[in-house]
Amino acid sequence: MAGNREQTQNEPAASAAVVLLSGGLDSATAAAWAREQGFELYALSFDYGQRHRFEIEAAQRIAQWLGVREHRVLRIDLSPLLHSALTGTEQVPRGRSLDAMSQGIPVTYVPARNTIMLSVALGWAEVLGAANLVIGVNAVDYSGYPDCRPEYVAAFEKLANLATKAGVEETLRFRVHTPLIRWTKGEIIRYGTERGVPYQWTHSCYDPDSSGRPCGQCDACLLRIKGFEEAGLKDPLCYPKA
Amino acid sequence: MAGNREQTQNEPAASAAVVLLSGGLDSATAAAWAREQGFELYALSFDYGQRHRFEIEAAQRIAQWLGVREHRVLRIDLSPLLHSALTGTEQVPRGRSLDAMSQGIPVTYVPARNTIMLSVALGWAEVLGAANLVIGVNAVDYSGYPDCRPEYVAAFEKLANLATKAGVEETLRFRVHTPLIRWTKGEIIRYGTERGVPYQWTHSCYDPDSSGRPCGQCDACLLRIKGFEEAGLKDPLCYPKA
Repeated sequence: MAGNREQTQNEPAASAAVVLLSGGLDSATAAAWAREQGFELYALSFDYGQRHRFEIEAAQRIAQWLGVREHRVLRIDLSPLLHSALTGTEQVPRGRSLDAMSQGIPVTYVPARNTIMLSVALGWAEVLGAANLVIGVNAVDYSGYPDCRPEYVAAFEKLANLATKAGVEETLRFRVHTPLIRWTKGEIIRYGTERGVPYQWTHSCYDPDSSGRPCGQCDACLLRIKGFEEAGLKDPLCYPKA
Repeated sequence: MAGNREQTQNEPAASAAVVLLSGGLDSATAAAWAREQGFELYALSFDYGQRHRFEIEAAQRIAQWLGVREHRVLRIDLSPLLHSALTGTEQVPRGRSLDAMSQGIPVTYVPARNTIMLSVALGWAEVLGAANLVIGVNAVDYSGYPDCRPEYVAAFEKLANLATKAGVEETLRFRVHTPLIRWTKGEIIRYGTERGVPYQWTHSCYDPDSSGRPCGQCDACLLRIKGFEEAGLKDPLCYPKA
């Protein structure tokens, strides 16, 4: 078990954290990790004109399960600015091999997505007096997203402390926690399952049907399915027969 | 004249720039500077639930005067998250001395504001293939905002190149241009006036009346009035009699 490799020892156990909650498996697990650290949780989700709005409902259920102090959903329609597979109408790749997925940056990349979400989280954190930001990014398992890498996260953390009144006046020392960054999907699922994360409510598919059922063929579904296999656990979601 | 102190020599003259256009005097001048560098301009404004919506109209007029390729106004209602003088209902300070203004960080500070705006600008820039971001921040003249300082801007520029596909693949090298960062308000106004910036359309006041007329007493009005005096020029705006 990868455990809490990214945890720091000197963090005040009861301090507050803004957790980015997408409704997906990774962010739900990262939030469960944050709760286990003793952080008081403030969940933040974005309704950014994405194709799969089921994610927002999933985030709401998960926030409730977590017992967060507050859950805010910020509407920000980036689709006219940031056209990509997640917000646009292009075809999401289906049935790709893991080899194909590992080539370069995925088509589902949304320009500056994590930077925008972390920036808003930072603003809210400063208002709350919360020193901790938690994001479920992952740099392994064919992710390939530039804004999921440790060097990116370190640069954002540095920026956060230069950008804010609380950082400059040193009333808060902002930290960006990325508990999952070096875990495999199997390790993430095992960690979350041991803590009872309700994976039946999490939403991973890039291309669900009109009722929100996963396609089982996009990169996100294939990685999820492989992750449950790797963890030796049963995925509570149902997929269409091939 | 402070001139184009922040300009780099090796920038391709005809490349594109996303300029943050608030409708204020500084951003209009920074955009005029960017046009003079030969950048093709894409203007971005935010309707973020701020008190003075006249700014958006001002930004539209200025964008037209600049002859930008595109002007986008992004609606993002941050006020429930980022409560502050600019978005909330607290009293804006009036009639303060310059000494009082120079004490610490202004009450008009909005947590993570520039970071949020630059992040969205970065996303749009990547979509456009534009390597340049232009923001009219200023670190002198009693600004005191943490996200207007050169060290903050340098940290954002570094982040931009780590955060993006274009940065990581080196198809673009993002630069954040801050032409005004070390100019006094008088220098900014002199530079802009020489280039015909329509200051009669720019909007500075934190607390305008219902028709958008400036109060003449808030920090922003007082600095603007002082800037025109310093430049030896006449402010085209009218202020109420004291």
